[in-house]
Amino acid sequence: MPILHKDMQLCVSFAARPSNIGTRFHNYLYDELGLNFVYKAFAPVDIAQAVAGVRGLPIRGASVSMPFKEAVIPLVDHLHASATAIDSVNTIVNDDGVLTAYNTDYLAVESLLRTHAVDPAASVLLRGSGGMAKAVLAAFAGAGFGDLTVAARNETAGRALADRYGARWIPDPADAGAEVLVNVTPLGMHGCDAAVQSFPDAAIAGAEVVFDVVAMPAETPLITAARARKKRVITGAEVIALQAAEQFTRYTGVELTADQIQRAAAFSRA
Amino acid sequence: MPILHKDMQLCVSFAARPSNIGTRFHNYLYDELGLNFVYKAFAPVDIAQAVAGVRGLPIRGASVSMPFKEAVIPLVDHLHASATAIDSVNTIVNDDGVLTAYNTDYLAVESLLRTHAVDPAASVLLRGSGGMAKAVLAAFAGAGFGDLTVAARNETAGRALADRYGARWIPDPADAGAEVLVNVTPLGMHGCDAAVQSFPDAAIAGAEVVFDVVAMPAETPLITAARARKKRVITGAEVIALQAAEQFTRYTGVELTADQIQRAAAFSRA
Repeated sequence: MPILHKDMQLCVSFAARPSNIGTRFHNYLYDELGLNFVYKAFAPVDIAQAVAGVRGLPIRGASVSMPFKEAVIPLVDHLHASATAIDSVNTIVNDDGVLTAYNTDYLAVESLLRTHAVDPAASVLLRGSGGMAKAVLAAFAGAGFGDLTVAARNETAGRALADRYGARWIPDPADAGAEVLVNVTPLGMHGCDAAVQSFPDAAIAGAEVVFDVVAMPAETPLITAARARKKRVITGAEVIALQAAEQFTRYTGVELTADQIQRAAAFSRA
Repeated sequence: MPILHKDMQLCVSFAARPSNIGTRFHNYLYDELGLNFVYKAFAPVDIAQAVAGVRGLPIRGASVSMPFKEAVIPLVDHLHASATAIDSVNTIVNDDGVLTAYNTDYLAVESLLRTHAVDPAASVLLRGSGGMAKAVLAAFAGAGFGDLTVAARNETAGRALADRYGARWIPDPADAGAEVLVNVTPLGMHGCDAAVQSFPDAAIAGAEVVFDVVAMPAETPLITAARARKKRVITGAEVIALQAAEQFTRYTGVELTADQIQRAAAFSRA
């Protein structure tokens, strides 16, 4: 049980249904690094008053999840390019009363494309049309990828997403192949369609990089099939850990090592 | 280092210069009682936005110290009689978005007069005219004491205080005696006038009960002199512990034993 010191800085998360993942990730590293910070998840009853509380208490940083990612936009002072690119905020940083909003999902994908040395000239087939699909597609576009295809059964959502970032829309991912396959649907996710492989074997065989944004489990049927064919893979666990690390750095000023990120991520999922 | 659970209820304190006393008192008892609560002190940058945060996050309870005790009055939904009696709030309780404000200093003094069986027919001489003097005098008046004298050098403040609660005003405590002597000045306080005895020996000799609101140290020169003369004493440490216990019960619903209050109070001052 904590005896929280009065001078500790508080970081929080806002979500309709908070998980313990962020709480465990951040507090684990505060402890390891000896930082005078503490992190607590909230399910706000009024998001405008919760953000007022960020200013008033004050709170150093707030992670923002569903359903508040758009609602907080008019409540902050500055929007970082990562948030304006997708009209969605998942991170608020309070610098002496000035609130700046970021989207670290966007930043994490952008960073992973760089560290995994994915060639912007490669063709990309992205499956999905929800909020996270928007973040991922925007990060590809922002990183200079020009050959982008969105596969989504919902034509309205699929076309709107594709049009915004200069991509083509197709209804069925089986109708196309690409050098980079990206799943941003719940297919393969624990508790949803855990056994479903979100791209067919033939598409995997023809690809160079396979990226699954599903994080629970990290080893989805898609990732397992891609590893079996010795494809380069990027997992949703990497996205989650890296976006949390991007938040961590913005809240505390501390850059994390890959090892620290990995251990904190493992602890957060335990 | 805490790994704060997402479902923990947060209680806070608001003060321009927070101490660790409340933090230690409440967290000590949360731990001992196994309550899923955590307590953190804040120095708000904007009290209206901080109270908005109480509603929005939500926060279960907020302890309010200088200089916010009057400023929060228009920000809450209901004022308990303990707060309206002195136009001063030191406790806000959030029941599903409805904020009720109390003054547990008032409640603690009222309770101590009862448990120490101080006779309301007794004459009372109270030294001081600040915010805490108001809480103490109001509690005496509310408990039915009718023979009240306020001694304060500041005539404007002293007369205003005395008039409000049906007391007489005198400038110098040496000019009067009473069965109950009450010090609500910083005389005898660590770091202020630690060596000063706030009432003369003759007044102590003629009194039955000696009450010193100074809490640090609990054994002020006044209390030491009163004990030497075998007078009944009430200390500021009792007030602080009891007002915190009154907050604790309102936040958690748990009634504390005298032993629990005493141990938590000792821990909070360690």
